Amino acid sequence: MADAIVSFLDGGKRLRPAFAYWGWRGAGGDPGSDPAREQAVLRAAAALELVQMSALVHDDVMDGSASRRGQPSVHVRFSALHREQRWSGDAAGFGRAAAILIGDLGLIWADAMFGGSGLPADVVARAAPAYDLMRTEVMAGQYLDVLGQVRDDHDDPAQALADALRVARYKAAGYTVERPLHLGSLMAGDDPALRATYTEYGVAIGTAFQLRDDLLGVFGDPVQTGKPAGDDLREGKRTVLIALARAAATAEQRAVLEKSLGDPHLSQDDVAVLRTLLTETGAVARVETMISERTAEALRALDGGSVAPDAERMLRSLAVAATTRTY
Amino acid sequence: MADAIVSFLDGGKRLRPAFAYWGWRGAGGDPGSDPAREQAVLRAAAALELVQMSALVHDDVMDGSASRRGQPSVHVRFSALHREQRWSGDAAGFGRAAAILIGDLGLIWADAMFGGSGLPADVVARAAPAYDLMRTEVMAGQYLDVLGQVRDDHDDPAQALADALRVARYKAAGYTVERPLHLGSLMAGDDPALRATYTEYGVAIGTAFQLRDDLLGVFGDPVQTGKPAGDDLREGKRTVLIALARAAATAEQRAVLEKSLGDPHLSQDDVAVLRTLLTETGAVARVETMISERTAEALRALDGGSVAPDAERMLRSLAVAATTRTY
Repeated sequence: MADAIVSFLDGGKRLRPAFAYWGWRGAGGDPGSDPAREQAVLRAAAALELVQMSALVHDDVMDGSASRRGQPSVHVRFSALHREQRWSGDAAGFGRAAAILIGDLGLIWADAMFGGSGLPADVVARAAPAYDLMRTEVMAGQYLDVLGQVRDDHDDPAQALADALRVARYKAAGYTVERPLHLGSLMAGDDPALRATYTEYGVAIGTAFQLRDDLLGVFGDPVQTGKPAGDDLREGKRTVLIALARAAATAEQRAVLEKSLGDPHLSQDDVAVLRTLLTETGAVARVETMISERTAEALRALDGGSVAPDAERMLRSLAVAATTRTY
Repeated sequence: MADAIVSFLDGGKRLRPAFAYWGWRGAGGDPGSDPAREQAVLRAAAALELVQMSALVHDDVMDGSASRRGQPSVHVRFSALHREQRWSGDAAGFGRAAAILIGDLGLIWADAMFGGSGLPADVVARAAPAYDLMRTEVMAGQYLDVLGQVRDDHDDPAQALADALRVARYKAAGYTVERPLHLGSLMAGDDPALRATYTEYGVAIGTAFQLRDDLLGVFGDPVQTGKPAGDDLREGKRTVLIALARAAATAEQRAVLEKSLGDPHLSQDDVAVLRTLLTETGAVARVETMISERTAEALRALDGGSVAPDAERMLRSLAVAATTRTY
């Protein structure tokens, strides 16, 4: 179990730990004056990478995804082990069981790492509510995402767009940016005004991050993303991109979308047809515009000068990195 | 998600919270002198029931169990919702995804409840390592349990027995009794000698608890256990009961066991045949003897007088309750 966790953690962008760390720096956390405290903050921030590991391993079980970060996903890896060892029973069931337990263990170890980071107990207690909210919100977002894939009540395009943005708000904006920043700031002190700035920046950049993810899920290069091309289409994910395309589609385009989305057997040619369609409806261009607008909004949120200068510079470059990435 | 959690929590024996609370009392925790502290201890202890909820919900997904506590299991409940609502896609897959997320949420809320119990931050920090170990060990035990069901390398009866006892050690003894008691004692103070007594008592009674569970998994009344009769046999669980039966079986009995264990389609008649077989090999009687011996051992561990009197009395009666139960 530990091997699977360690090898999984080899990949990953470490974005959530980065936002937590720079959230601390932005709140005045000073590595120069107290290097031991910085080490503790780094350990607490690194715990977020274990939370993310857990979420992705469980996500791959839920979606039946075969690969992640360019490697077989954890449940596939344990199914293969079952076959290699010629064990009895159902290899796929064994792989799923192992992956569920490994995801659980990741969540538990994250918690042990956060609590055992070396931060004083009162600092852990002050920061814990942000950590709890972060994890609760991602579960709510994940559930809404799964629900969106099966509910067929999206005849109202405005509602479909609102639903997709709500998933992005919880699953990405809160979880990836806003709450990690809050967690970081609470490790330094209690500054509600700074947290409000972080919310403004975080919700905007986190939503843009998810919008970029939606585009990569359809147009991304599998070598760079580590996931098969078009997987989001096969899973029928109800992203903002899809909501916009459905709203703008002709009757003919709409029929193609309805037929194809969520079909696990889509070929590369089918995926290519859908890519063209998404582009032709103007949905891709609209998503790109939304990303630019939200990135600009996030950068403006930093203009007030409430974030310490080094951190402000880093948050500006993280904003660009998170939203212009190709993987 | 919250509804499913609340309705699940309606059932359950609350054994782990009970051991945590009495672990605190046994270490000198005094409700009379500080009622507010007792309330905080009760909240922290109650968090363990959420951990258990999470473990059982995930366990039912892994085993494909249809019912739990006399109700449909969570994944079955969400599959049924999918069908009722005529949602699109795979109802079973939706049920599994919902149950995985609900189990995750239970683990996260347990953590929020433990940290937010109202205990002073230094007390939370002192008790957290026991809480972390408790959760880590149950995951290790669960994995070893799943592994035991698929590995066919149990030609050596002594090794098979040792493996089954190791699963019981982690999955039940540590998780259900020893670590909750440690957690309780650490909420009161730091007393290594008392923790050693709790380990002696907890490992013995927790193992006996699991042995009783093994018997109930085969012989239990479904109305009382809330689980279908013989489910452990259909799942092919490698319990101590099974290890003892295989060791003592004639060639003919052994062939029946090999053929039947892990067969998901066993009929009630097949289960009846296996019950007779397990009894005739003497395995049932041996397990009953092991339960009695370990219960006696646990009660002896309390003789030293290191546990506060009220708690000692309660631990004696919990020892009997946990090992003579019928559900």
